[in-house]
Amino acid sequence: MDLLKVAMIGSGNWGTTVARIVASNIEIYKEEFDPIVKMWMFEEIVNGRKLSEIINTEHENVKYLPDILIFVTPHQFLVNICNNMKGKLKENAIGISLIKGLLPEKKGGIRLISEEIHDILNISVSILMGANLAQEVADGHFCEATLGCLESNEISEKLRKLFETDNFKISVVHDPKTVEVCGALKNIVGCAAGIADGLDCGQNTKAAILRIGLVEITKFVDMFYPGSHIRTFFESCGIGDLIATCYGGRNRAVCEAMVKTKKVFTTKNFSDQIFYFLDY
Amino acid sequence: MDLLKVAMIGSGNWGTTVARIVASNIEIYKEEFDPIVKMWMFEEIVNGRKLSEIINTEHENVKYLPDILIFVTPHQFLVNICNNMKGKLKENAIGISLIKGLLPEKKGGIRLISEEIHDILNISVSILMGANLAQEVADGHFCEATLGCLESNEISEKLRKLFETDNFKISVVHDPKTVEVCGALKNIVGCAAGIADGLDCGQNTKAAILRIGLVEITKFVDMFYPGSHIRTFFESCGIGDLIATCYGGRNRAVCEAMVKTKKVFTTKNFSDQIFYFLDY
Repeated sequence: MDLLKVAMIGSGNWGTTVARIVASNIEIYKEEFDPIVKMWMFEEIVNGRKLSEIINTEHENVKYLPDILIFVTPHQFLVNICNNMKGKLKENAIGISLIKGLLPEKKGGIRLISEEIHDILNISVSILMGANLAQEVADGHFCEATLGCLESNEISEKLRKLFETDNFKISVVHDPKTVEVCGALKNIVGCAAGIADGLDCGQNTKAAILRIGLVEITKFVDMFYPGSHIRTFFESCGIGDLIATCYGGRNRAVCEAMVKTKKVFTTKNFSDQIFYFLDY
Repeated sequence: MDLLKVAMIGSGNWGTTVARIVASNIEIYKEEFDPIVKMWMFEEIVNGRKLSEIINTEHENVKYLPDILIFVTPHQFLVNICNNMKGKLKENAIGISLIKGLLPEKKGGIRLISEEIHDILNISVSILMGANLAQEVADGHFCEATLGCLESNEISEKLRKLFETDNFKISVVHDPKTVEVCGALKNIVGCAAGIADGLDCGQNTKAAILRIGLVEITKFVDMFYPGSHIRTFFESCGIGDLIATCYGGRNRAVCEAMVKTKKVFTTKNFSDQIFYFLDY
Protein backbone atom coordinates (compact mmCIF):
# COMPACT_ATOMS: atom_id res chain seq x y z
CA MET A 1 0.00 0.00 0.00
CA ASP A 2 1.25 3.46 -0.87
CA LEU A 3 1.86 5.65 2.14
CA LEU A 4 -0.75 8.37 2.54
CA LYS A 5 0.58 11.93 2.52
CA VAL A 6 -0.98 14.35 4.97
CA ALA A 7 -0.94 18.16 4.81
CA MET A 8 -2.10 20.78 7.28
CA ILE A 9 -3.69 23.84 5.65
CA GLY A 10 -3.34 26.49 8.35
CA SER A 11 -0.90 27.26 11.13
CA GLY A 12 -2.77 29.04 13.91
CA ASN A 13 -2.89 27.75 17.48
CA TRP A 14 -5.40 24.99 16.71
CA GLY A 15 -3.63 24.07 13.49
CA THR A 16 -0.30 23.81 15.26
CA THR A 17 -1.79 21.80 18.09
CA VAL A 18 -3.38 19.36 15.69
CA ALA A 19 -0.23 19.18 13.55
CA ARG A 20 1.65 18.00 16.60
CA ILE A 21 -0.92 15.29 17.29
CA VAL A 22 -1.05 14.15 13.69
CA ALA A 23 2.73 14.05 13.36
CA SER A 24 3.09 11.88 16.43
CA ASN A 25 0.35 9.52 15.25
CA ILE A 26 2.04 9.13 11.88
CA GLU A 27 5.12 7.94 13.77
CA ILE A 28 2.94 5.21 15.30
CA TYR A 29 1.26 4.14 12.04
CA LYS A 30 4.39 4.20 9.87
CA GLU A 31 3.05 1.53 7.55
CA GLU A 32 0.09 3.70 6.52
CA PHE A 33 1.17 7.34 6.46
CA ASP A 34 4.06 9.17 4.79
CA PRO A 35 6.42 10.37 7.57
CA ILE A 36 6.43 13.99 6.39
CA VAL A 37 3.51 16.20 7.38
CA LYS A 38 3.57 19.51 5.56
CA MET A 39 1.97 22.56 7.05
CA TRP A 40 0.65 25.18 4.64
CA MET A 41 0.72 28.61 6.09
CA PHE A 42 0.22 32.28 5.42
CA GLU A 43 3.65 33.88 5.68
CA GLU A 44 4.23 36.34 8.51
CA ILE A 45 7.32 38.01 9.90
CA VAL A 46 7.75 37.26 13.60
CA ASN A 47 10.56 39.05 15.44
CA GLY A 48 12.23 39.86 12.13
CA ARG A 49 12.20 36.26 10.87
CA LYS A 50 9.86 34.44 8.58
CA LEU A 51 7.41 32.30 10.55
CA SER A 52 8.02 29.57 7.99
CA GLU A 53 11.71 29.45 8.96
CA ILE A 54 10.90 29.51 12.63
CA ILE A 55 8.77 26.39 12.42
CA ASN A 56 11.24 24.89 9.96
CA THR A 57 8.95 24.35 7.03
CA GLU A 58 8.35 25.96 3.61
CA HIS A 59 5.60 26.80 1.18
CA GLU A 60 5.29 23.93 -1.23
CA ASN A 61 4.56 23.72 -4.91
CA VAL A 62 1.04 22.50 -5.41
CA LYS A 63 2.24 19.54 -7.47
CA TYR A 64 3.21 17.88 -4.20
CA LEU A 65 -0.27 18.07 -2.74
CA PRO A 66 -1.28 15.21 -0.44
CA ASP A 67 -3.92 12.48 -0.01
CA ILE A 68 -5.44 13.95 3.10
CA LEU A 69 -5.88 17.70 3.46
CA ILE A 70 -6.58 18.99 6.94
CA PHE A 71 -8.19 22.42 6.69
CA VAL A 72 -7.65 24.55 9.77
CA THR A 73 -7.29 28.08 8.40
CA PRO A 74 -9.35 31.08 9.49
CA HIS A 75 -12.52 30.74 7.44
CA GLN A 76 -12.13 34.10 5.68
CA PHE A 77 -9.04 32.82 3.83
CA LEU A 78 -10.58 29.53 2.80
CA VAL A 79 -12.03 30.37 -0.59
CA ASN A 80 -8.77 31.84 -1.93
CA ILE A 81 -6.77 28.90 -0.64
CA CYS A 82 -9.12 26.40 -2.27
CA ASN A 83 -9.14 28.32 -5.55
CA ASN A 84 -5.33 28.15 -5.61
CA MET A 85 -5.48 24.37 -5.19
CA LYS A 86 -8.21 23.85 -7.75
CA GLY A 87 -7.46 21.23 -10.40
CA LYS A 88 -4.13 20.32 -8.80
CA LEU A 89 -5.20 17.68 -6.27
CA LYS A 90 -4.70 13.94 -6.47
CA GLU A 91 -7.73 12.15 -7.80
CA ASN A 92 -8.71 10.43 -4.55
CA ALA A 93 -7.68 13.19 -2.17
CA ILE A 94 -10.03 13.74 0.76
CA GLY A 95 -10.46 16.76 3.00
CA ILE A 96 -11.18 17.13 6.67
CA SER A 97 -12.26 20.48 8.03
CA LEU A 98 -11.49 21.67 11.54
CA ILE A 99 -12.71 25.17 10.71
CA LYS A 100 -15.47 26.51 12.91
CA GLY A 101 -17.93 28.94 11.43
CA LEU A 102 -20.23 29.41 8.46
CA LEU A 103 -19.88 31.19 5.13
CA PRO A 104 -22.38 33.62 3.64
CA GLU A 105 -24.22 32.53 0.49
CA LYS A 106 -23.91 35.12 -2.26
CA LYS A 107 -27.69 35.17 -2.64
CA GLY A 108 -28.18 35.47 1.12
CA GLY A 109 -28.37 32.70 3.68
CA ILE A 110 -25.53 30.57 4.95
CA ARG A 111 -23.30 27.90 3.55
CA LEU A 112 -21.29 25.16 5.26
CA ILE A 113 -17.53 25.38 4.97
CA SER A 114 -17.46 21.70 3.94
CA GLU A 115 -19.86 22.50 1.08
CA GLU A 116 -17.57 25.29 -0.12
CA ILE A 117 -14.47 23.08 -0.05
CA HIS A 118 -16.36 20.28 -1.79
CA ASP A 119 -17.73 22.56 -4.49
CA ILE A 120 -14.39 24.19 -5.32
CA LEU A 121 -12.17 21.11 -5.08
CA ASN A 122 -14.66 18.31 -5.82
CA ILE A 123 -13.41 16.22 -2.88
CA SER A 124 -15.25 14.55 -0.03
CA VAL A 125 -14.96 16.55 3.20
CA SER A 126 -15.18 15.16 6.72
CA ILE A 127 -15.45 17.26 9.86
CA LEU A 128 -13.64 17.23 13.19
CA MET A 129 -15.23 19.25 16.00
CA GLY A 130 -15.41 18.89 19.74
CA ALA A 131 -14.72 20.23 23.16
CA ASN A 132 -11.10 21.07 22.52
CA LEU A 133 -9.87 24.51 23.44
CA ALA A 134 -6.51 24.48 21.64
CA GLN A 135 -4.25 25.36 24.55
CA GLU A 136 -5.66 22.60 26.75
CA VAL A 137 -5.25 20.00 24.01
CA ALA A 138 -1.68 21.16 23.50
CA ASP A 139 -1.07 20.87 27.24
CA GLY A 140 -2.10 17.20 27.11
CA HIS A 141 -5.29 17.43 29.20
CA PHE A 142 -7.84 14.72 28.44
CA CYS A 143 -10.31 15.84 25.82
CA GLU A 144 -12.52 14.59 23.05
CA ALA A 145 -13.62 15.33 19.53
CA THR A 146 -16.19 14.00 17.08
CA LEU A 147 -15.30 12.96 13.56
CA GLY A 148 -18.25 13.40 11.20
CA CYS A 149 -17.58 11.34 8.10
CA LEU A 150 -19.82 10.08 5.31
CA GLU A 151 -17.05 7.86 3.96
CA SER A 152 -16.62 4.14 4.48
CA ASN A 153 -15.57 2.80 7.85
CA GLU A 154 -12.15 2.08 6.36
CA ILE A 155 -11.55 5.75 5.55
CA SER A 156 -13.11 7.10 8.74
CA GLU A 157 -10.89 4.71 10.69
CA LYS A 158 -7.80 6.10 8.94
CA LEU A 159 -8.85 9.64 9.80
CA ARG A 160 -9.55 8.63 13.39
CA LYS A 161 -6.05 7.14 13.64
CA LEU A 162 -4.56 10.41 12.46
CA PHE A 163 -6.02 12.36 15.35
CA GLU A 164 -6.61 10.05 18.33
CA THR A 165 -4.11 9.89 21.17
CA ASP A 166 -4.32 8.59 24.73
CA ASN A 167 -5.42 12.06 25.81
CA PHE A 168 -7.49 13.02 22.77
CA LYS A 169 -10.38 10.63 22.19
CA ILE A 170 -12.12 10.62 18.80
CA SER A 171 -15.63 9.23 18.20
CA VAL A 172 -16.87 8.66 14.66
CA VAL A 173 -20.41 9.50 13.55
CA HIS A 174 -21.68 9.34 9.99
CA ASP A 175 -23.51 12.65 10.33
CA PRO A 176 -20.97 15.31 9.27
CA LYS A 177 -23.37 18.21 8.70
CA THR A 178 -24.72 18.00 12.24
CA VAL A 179 -21.15 17.93 13.56
CA GLU A 180 -20.26 21.00 11.50
CA VAL A 181 -23.37 23.02 12.39
CA CYS A 182 -22.88 22.33 16.11
CA GLY A 183 -19.34 23.70 15.87
CA ALA A 184 -20.58 26.88 14.21
CA LEU A 185 -23.66 27.67 16.29
CA LYS A 186 -22.25 26.92 19.75
CA ASN A 187 -20.48 30.29 19.65
CA ILE A 188 -23.80 32.11 19.62
CA VAL A 189 -24.77 30.28 22.81
CA GLY A 190 -21.31 31.10 24.17
CA CYS A 191 -22.08 34.80 23.68
CA ALA A 192 -25.38 34.42 25.54
CA ALA A 193 -23.57 32.60 28.34
CA GLY A 194 -21.03 35.43 28.55
CA ILE A 195 -23.81 38.02 28.76
CA ALA A 196 -25.44 36.02 31.57
CA ASP A 197 -22.09 35.88 33.38
CA GLY A 198 -21.71 39.64 32.90
CA LEU A 199 -25.08 40.13 34.55
CA ASP A 200 -24.21 37.72 37.41
CA CYS A 201 -27.27 35.62 36.63
CA GLY A 202 -26.00 32.55 38.48
CA GLN A 203 -25.67 28.88 37.56
CA ASN A 204 -29.37 28.06 37.13
CA THR A 205 -29.83 30.73 34.50
CA LYS A 206 -26.63 29.80 32.73
CA ALA A 207 -27.61 26.13 32.66
CA ALA A 208 -30.98 27.17 31.20
CA ILE A 209 -29.24 29.21 28.49
CA LEU A 210 -27.03 26.28 27.51
CA ARG A 211 -29.95 23.87 27.50
CA ILE A 212 -32.25 26.12 25.47
CA GLY A 213 -29.34 26.95 23.15
CA LEU A 214 -28.71 23.26 22.50
CA VAL A 215 -32.39 22.63 21.81
CA GLU A 216 -32.39 25.56 19.37
CA ILE A 217 -29.37 24.07 17.58
CA THR A 218 -31.19 20.73 17.24
CA LYS A 219 -34.19 22.57 15.75
CA PHE A 220 -31.96 24.48 13.34
CA VAL A 221 -30.33 21.26 12.15
CA ASP A 222 -33.72 19.53 11.83
CA MET A 223 -35.04 22.34 9.68
CA PHE A 224 -32.07 23.09 7.42
CA TYR A 225 -30.14 19.79 7.36
CA PRO A 226 -32.83 17.14 7.79
CA GLY A 227 -31.78 13.57 8.46
CA SER A 228 -29.55 14.33 11.44
CA HIS A 229 -29.27 11.84 14.27
CA ILE A 230 -30.38 13.07 17.71
CA ARG A 231 -27.55 11.00 19.27
CA THR A 232 -24.98 13.18 17.51
CA PHE A 233 -25.88 16.01 19.91
CA PHE A 234 -24.71 13.80 22.79
CA GLU A 235 -21.26 13.60 21.23
CA SER A 236 -18.37 15.92 21.99
CA CYS A 237 -19.29 18.15 19.02
CA GLY A 238 -22.69 18.77 20.63
CA ILE A 239 -23.10 19.00 24.37
CA GLY A 240 -19.36 18.73 25.07
CA ASP A 241 -18.25 21.59 22.86
CA LEU A 242 -21.19 23.71 23.99
CA ILE A 243 -20.20 23.36 27.64
CA ALA A 244 -16.49 24.00 27.02
CA THR A 245 -17.35 27.07 24.93
CA CYS A 246 -19.83 28.47 27.44
CA TYR A 247 -17.42 28.12 30.36
CA GLY A 248 -13.96 28.44 28.80
CA GLY A 249 -14.36 29.97 25.34
CA ARG A 250 -13.33 33.35 24.04
CA ASN A 251 -16.79 34.42 22.87
CA ARG A 252 -18.00 33.91 26.41
CA ALA A 253 -15.15 36.01 27.81
CA VAL A 254 -15.69 38.79 25.27
CA CYS A 255 -19.39 39.07 25.97
CA GLU A 256 -18.95 38.99 29.73
CA ALA A 257 -16.36 41.75 29.44
CA MET A 258 -18.63 43.83 27.18
CA VAL A 259 -21.46 43.68 29.71
CA LYS A 260 -19.24 44.40 32.71
CA THR A 261 -17.28 47.25 31.12
CA LYS A 262 -20.03 48.54 28.80
CA LYS A 263 -17.38 48.74 26.04
CA VAL A 264 -17.12 47.05 22.64
CA PHE A 265 -13.61 45.70 22.39
CA THR A 266 -11.41 46.77 19.53
CA THR A 267 -8.25 44.87 20.46
CA LYS A 268 -7.54 42.38 17.74
CA ASN A 269 -8.09 39.19 19.68
CA PHE A 270 -11.47 40.24 20.91
CA SER A 271 -12.78 42.14 17.92
CA ASP A 272 -12.10 39.31 15.46
CA GLN A 273 -14.32 37.05 17.45
CA ILE A 274 -17.08 39.60 17.69
CA PHE A 275 -17.03 40.24 13.98
CA TYR A 276 -17.21 36.51 13.28
CA PHE A 277 -20.32 36.43 15.37
CA LEU A 278 -21.90 39.56 13.94
CA ASP A 279 -21.14 38.77 10.31
CA TYR A 280 -23.68 36.00 9.93
CA MET B 1 -65.31 22.81 41.76
CA ASP B 2 -63.89 22.17 45.23
CA LEU B 3 -60.72 24.07 45.93
CA LEU B 4 -57.64 21.85 45.96
CA LYS B 5 -55.67 21.82 49.20
CA VAL B 6 -51.91 21.76 48.91
CA ALA B 7 -49.39 20.67 51.54
CA MET B 8 -45.62 20.85 51.62
CA ILE B 9 -43.96 17.85 53.28
CA GLY B 10 -40.57 19.21 54.28
CA SER B 11 -39.14 22.57 55.29
CA GLY B 12 -35.49 22.68 54.21
CA ASN B 13 -34.12 25.36 51.92
CA TRP B 14 -35.60 23.86 48.77
CA GLY B 15 -38.90 23.13 50.51
CA THR B 16 -39.14 26.69 51.78
CA THR B 17 -38.22 28.13 48.40
CA VAL B 18 -40.86 26.06 46.67
CA ALA B 19 -43.44 26.81 49.36
CA ARG B 20 -43.01 30.49 48.60
CA ILE B 21 -43.53 29.92 44.87
CA VAL B 22 -46.54 27.67 45.41
CA ALA B 23 -48.17 30.08 47.86
CA SER B 24 -47.85 32.99 45.46
CA ASN B 25 -49.27 30.93 42.59
CA ILE B 26 -52.23 29.90 44.69
CA GLU B 27 -52.98 33.60 45.11
CA ILE B 28 -53.13 33.86 41.32
CA TYR B 29 -55.32 30.80 40.77
CA LYS B 30 -57.75 31.44 43.64
CA GLU B 31 -60.60 29.66 41.88
CA GLU B 32 -58.70 26.36 41.85
CA PHE B 33 -56.58 26.10 44.99
CA ASP B 34 -57.38 26.45 48.70
CA PRO B 35 -55.63 29.63 49.93
CA ILE B 36 -53.88 27.89 52.84
CA VAL B 37 -50.68 25.96 52.09
CA LYS B 38 -49.55 23.89 55.04
CA MET B 39 -45.95 22.98 55.51
CA TRP B 40 -45.21 19.74 57.34
CA MET B 41 -41.92 19.82 59.10
CA PHE B 42 -39.63 17.98 61.48
CA GLU B 43 -39.54 20.02 64.69
CA GLU B 44 -36.24 21.63 65.65
CA ILE B 45 -35.24 24.21 68.25
CA VAL B 46 -33.55 27.20 66.62
CA ASN B 47 -32.10 29.88 68.94
CA GLY B 48 -34.23 28.55 71.78
CA ARG B 49 -37.50 28.70 69.83
CA LYS B 50 -39.45 26.07 68.00
CA LEU B 51 -38.82 26.31 64.24
CA SER B 52 -42.54 25.77 63.80
CA GLU B 53 -43.27 28.98 65.74
CA ILE B 54 -40.62 30.88 63.87
CA ILE B 55 -42.20 30.17 60.51
CA ASN B 56 -45.65 30.61 61.98
CA THR B 57 -47.10 27.21 61.27
CA GLU B 58 -47.95 24.05 63.22
CA HIS B 59 -47.95 20.29 62.92
CA GLU B 60 -51.34 19.30 61.67
CA ASN B 61 -53.59 16.37 62.45
CA VAL B 62 -53.55 13.97 59.57
CA LYS B 63 -57.31 14.22 59.16
CA TYR B 64 -56.72 17.55 57.38
CA LEU B 65 -54.44 16.07 54.77
CA PRO B 66 -54.61 17.67 51.34
CA ASP B 67 -55.30 16.87 47.67
CA ILE B 68 -51.78 17.55 46.49
CA LEU B 69 -48.81 16.49 48.61
CA ILE B 70 -45.49 18.05 47.70
CA PHE B 71 -42.70 15.86 49.06
CA VAL B 72 -39.50 17.75 49.69
CA THR B 73 -38.04 16.13 52.81
CA PRO B 74 -34.56 14.68 53.11
CA HIS B 75 -34.95 11.20 51.65
CA GLN B 76 -33.88 9.37 54.80
CA PHE B 77 -37.04 10.57 56.63
CA LEU B 78 -39.40 9.69 53.81
CA VAL B 79 -40.45 6.17 54.75
CA ASN B 80 -41.41 7.13 58.33
CA ILE B 81 -43.35 10.15 57.13
CA CYS B 82 -45.27 8.08 54.58
CA ASN B 83 -45.99 5.34 57.11
CA ASN B 84 -47.50 7.97 59.42
CA MET B 85 -49.80 9.15 56.62
CA LYS B 86 -50.80 5.66 55.50
CA GLY B 87 -54.55 5.10 55.23
CA LYS B 88 -55.34 8.69 56.13
CA LEU B 89 -55.18 10.38 52.73
CA LYS B 90 -58.08 11.57 50.59
CA GLU B 91 -59.09 9.06 47.98
CA ASN B 92 -57.87 11.05 44.97
CA ALA B 93 -54.84 12.63 46.57
CA ILE B 94 -51.78 12.87 44.34
CA GLY B 95 -48.15 13.30 45.23
CA ILE B 96 -45.32 15.18 43.63
CA SER B 97 -41.78 14.48 44.69
CA LEU B 98 -39.01 17.09 44.63
CA ILE B 99 -36.68 14.76 46.52
CA LYS B 100 -33.39 14.01 44.83
CA GLY B 101 -31.77 10.66 45.47
CA LEU B 102 -32.50 6.95 45.48
CA LEU B 103 -33.49 4.47 48.17
CA PRO B 104 -31.85 1.10 48.79
CA GLU B 105 -33.93 -2.01 48.10
CA LYS B 106 -33.97 -4.33 51.09
CA LYS B 107 -32.81 -7.20 48.89
CA GLY B 108 -30.10 -5.06 47.33
CA GLY B 109 -30.30 -2.73 44.37
CA ILE B 110 -32.01 0.63 44.25
CA ARG B 111 -35.53 1.93 44.40
CA LEU B 112 -37.06 5.17 43.17
CA ILE B 113 -38.44 7.50 45.80
CA SER B 114 -41.64 7.83 43.75
CA GLU B 115 -42.05 4.03 43.86
CA GLU B 116 -41.69 4.05 47.65
CA ILE B 117 -44.27 6.81 48.09
CA HIS B 118 -46.63 5.06 45.69
CA ASP B 119 -46.26 1.71 47.37
CA ILE B 120 -46.84 2.99 50.92
CA LEU B 121 -49.61 5.49 50.16
CA ASN B 122 -51.12 4.03 46.98
CA ILE B 123 -51.16 7.42 45.25
CA SER B 124 -49.88 8.54 41.88
CA VAL B 125 -46.57 10.39 42.18
CA SER B 126 -45.24 13.00 39.75
CA ILE B 127 -41.71 14.39 39.79
CA LEU B 128 -40.28 17.90 39.66
CA MET B 129 -36.56 18.18 38.94
CA GLY B 130 -34.38 20.68 37.15
CA ALA B 131 -31.55 23.12 37.18
CA ASN B 132 -32.66 24.95 40.27
CA LEU B 133 -30.14 25.52 43.01
CA ALA B 134 -32.47 26.60 45.83
CA GLN B 135 -30.85 29.91 46.73
CA GLU B 136 -30.87 31.17 43.14
CA VAL B 137 -34.53 30.28 42.69
CA ALA B 138 -35.33 32.07 45.94
CA ASP B 139 -33.38 35.11 44.71
CA GLY B 140 -35.63 35.27 41.64
CA HIS B 141 -33.01 34.44 38.96
CA PHE B 142 -34.46 32.89 35.81
CA CYS B 143 -34.47 29.11 36.00
CA GLU B 144 -36.31 26.05 34.80
CA ALA B 145 -37.62 22.70 35.95
CA THR B 146 -39.16 19.63 34.38
CA LEU B 147 -42.42 18.13 35.59
CA GLY B 148 -42.55 14.40 34.92
CA CYS B 149 -46.15 13.28 35.14
CA LEU B 150 -48.00 10.18 33.93
CA GLU B 151 -51.37 11.77 34.72
CA SER B 152 -53.76 13.41 32.29
CA ASN B 153 -52.91 16.76 30.77
CA GLU B 154 -55.57 18.29 33.02
CA ILE B 155 -53.76 17.19 36.16
CA SER B 156 -50.28 17.92 34.87
CA GLU B 157 -51.48 21.40 33.93
CA LYS B 158 -52.71 21.97 37.50
CA LEU B 159 -49.35 20.89 38.86
CA ARG B 160 -47.55 23.11 36.38
CA LYS B 161 -49.66 26.08 37.50
CA LEU B 162 -48.66 25.44 41.11
CA PHE B 163 -44.98 25.88 40.37
CA GLU B 164 -44.50 28.10 37.32
CA THR B 165 -43.72 31.79 37.71
CA ASP B 166 -42.30 34.39 35.34
CA ASN B 167 -38.83 33.46 36.56
CA PHE B 168 -39.36 29.73 37.05
CA LYS B 169 -40.34 27.98 33.83
CA ILE B 170 -41.86 24.49 34.01
CA SER B 171 -41.95 22.04 31.09
CA VAL B 172 -44.14 18.94 31.28
CA VAL B 173 -42.99 15.52 30.03
CA HIS B 174 -44.90 12.28 30.46
CA ASP B 175 -41.74 10.39 31.40
CA PRO B 176 -41.47 10.70 35.21
CA LYS B 177 -38.98 7.91 35.86
CA THR B 178 -36.40 9.42 33.52
CA VAL B 179 -36.89 12.79 35.22
CA GLU B 180 -36.37 11.21 38.64
CA VAL B 181 -33.32 9.15 37.70
CA CYS B 182 -31.64 12.19 36.12
CA GLY B 183 -32.10 14.10 39.38
CA ALA B 184 -30.51 11.29 41.37
CA LEU B 185 -27.56 10.36 39.16
CA LYS B 186 -26.40 13.86 38.23
CA ASN B 187 -24.76 14.14 41.65
CA ILE B 188 -22.33 11.36 40.79
CA VAL B 189 -21.25 13.34 37.74
CA GLY B 190 -21.07 16.42 39.97
CA CYS B 191 -18.54 14.59 42.16
CA ALA B 192 -16.46 13.67 39.12
CA ALA B 193 -16.59 17.29 37.96
CA GLY B 194 -15.40 18.43 41.39
CA ILE B 195 -12.50 15.99 41.31
CA ALA B 196 -11.52 17.30 37.85
CA ASP B 197 -11.68 20.86 39.20
CA GLY B 198 -9.54 19.82 42.15
CA LEU B 199 -6.96 18.46 39.72
CA ASP B 200 -7.12 21.65 37.55
CA CYS B 201 -7.97 19.55 34.50
CA GLY B 202 -9.39 22.47 32.51
CA GLN B 203 -12.60 23.03 30.59
CA ASN B 204 -12.12 20.40 27.88
CA THR B 205 -11.79 17.61 30.39
CA LYS B 206 -14.68 18.88 32.46
CA ALA B 207 -16.90 19.10 29.38
CA ALA B 208 -15.90 15.52 28.52
CA ILE B 209 -16.83 14.37 32.03
CA LEU B 210 -20.26 16.00 31.81
CA ARG B 211 -20.89 14.59 28.35
CA ILE B 212 -19.80 11.06 29.20
CA GLY B 213 -21.73 11.29 32.48
CA LEU B 214 -24.91 12.25 30.64
CA VAL B 215 -24.45 9.40 28.15
CA GLU B 216 -23.97 6.99 31.07
CA ILE B 217 -27.21 8.25 32.64
CA THR B 218 -29.07 7.64 29.38
CA LYS B 219 -27.68 4.09 29.28
CA PHE B 220 -28.68 3.49 32.90
CA VAL B 221 -32.23 4.65 32.21
CA ASP B 222 -32.42 2.56 29.02
CA MET B 223 -31.37 -0.54 30.90
CA PHE B 224 -33.32 -0.23 34.15
CA TYR B 225 -36.33 1.93 33.17
CA PRO B 226 -36.93 1.09 29.51
CA GLY B 227 -39.35 3.19 27.51
CA SER B 228 -37.74 6.53 28.30
CA HIS B 229 -37.76 9.30 25.71
CA ILE B 230 -34.36 10.53 24.52
CA ARG B 231 -35.82 14.07 24.32
CA THR B 232 -36.32 14.08 28.10
CA PHE B 233 -32.55 14.35 28.52
CA PHE B 234 -32.67 17.67 26.66
CA GLU B 235 -35.03 19.05 29.32
CA SER B 236 -33.96 20.94 32.41
CA CYS B 237 -33.97 17.72 34.46
CA GLY B 238 -31.31 16.31 32.11
CA ILE B 239 -28.65 18.49 30.59
CA GLY B 240 -29.73 21.61 32.50
CA ASP B 241 -29.54 20.13 35.98
CA LEU B 242 -26.32 18.32 35.12
CA ILE B 243 -24.61 21.55 34.11
CA ALA B 244 -25.88 23.52 37.12
CA THR B 245 -24.77 20.71 39.44
CA CYS B 246 -21.35 20.33 37.87
CA TYR B 247 -20.60 24.07 38.04
CA GLY B 248 -22.58 25.30 41.03
CA GLY B 249 -23.58 22.28 43.13
CA ARG B 250 -22.45 21.22 46.57
CA ASN B 251 -21.18 17.78 45.55
CA ARG B 252 -18.88 19.48 43.07
CA ALA B 253 -17.57 21.83 45.77
CA VAL B 254 -17.07 19.03 48.28
CA CYS B 255 -15.12 16.88 45.85
CA GLU B 256 -12.96 19.75 44.65
CA ALA B 257 -12.17 20.61 48.26
CA MET B 258 -11.34 16.98 49.09
CA VAL B 259 -8.84 16.78 46.24
CA LYS B 260 -7.25 20.14 46.99
CA THR B 261 -7.00 19.66 50.76
CA LYS B 262 -6.59 15.87 50.76
CA LYS B 263 -9.11 15.77 53.64
CA VAL B 264 -12.51 14.08 53.96
CA PHE B 265 -14.84 16.69 55.36
CA THR B 266 -16.67 15.98 58.57
CA THR B 267 -18.57 19.27 58.91
CA LYS B 268 -22.24 18.55 58.74
CA ASN B 269 -23.05 20.33 55.51
CA PHE B 270 -20.34 18.59 53.60
CA SER B 271 -20.41 15.15 55.20
CA ASP B 272 -24.13 14.67 54.66
CA GLN B 273 -23.65 15.09 50.96
CA ILE B 274 -20.73 12.71 50.84
CA PHE B 275 -22.61 10.03 52.70
CA TYR B 276 -25.56 10.38 50.34
CA PHE B 277 -23.17 9.73 47.53
CA LEU B 278 -21.31 6.87 49.16
CA ASP B 279 -24.40 5.10 50.48
CA TYR B 280 -25.70 3.93 47.13
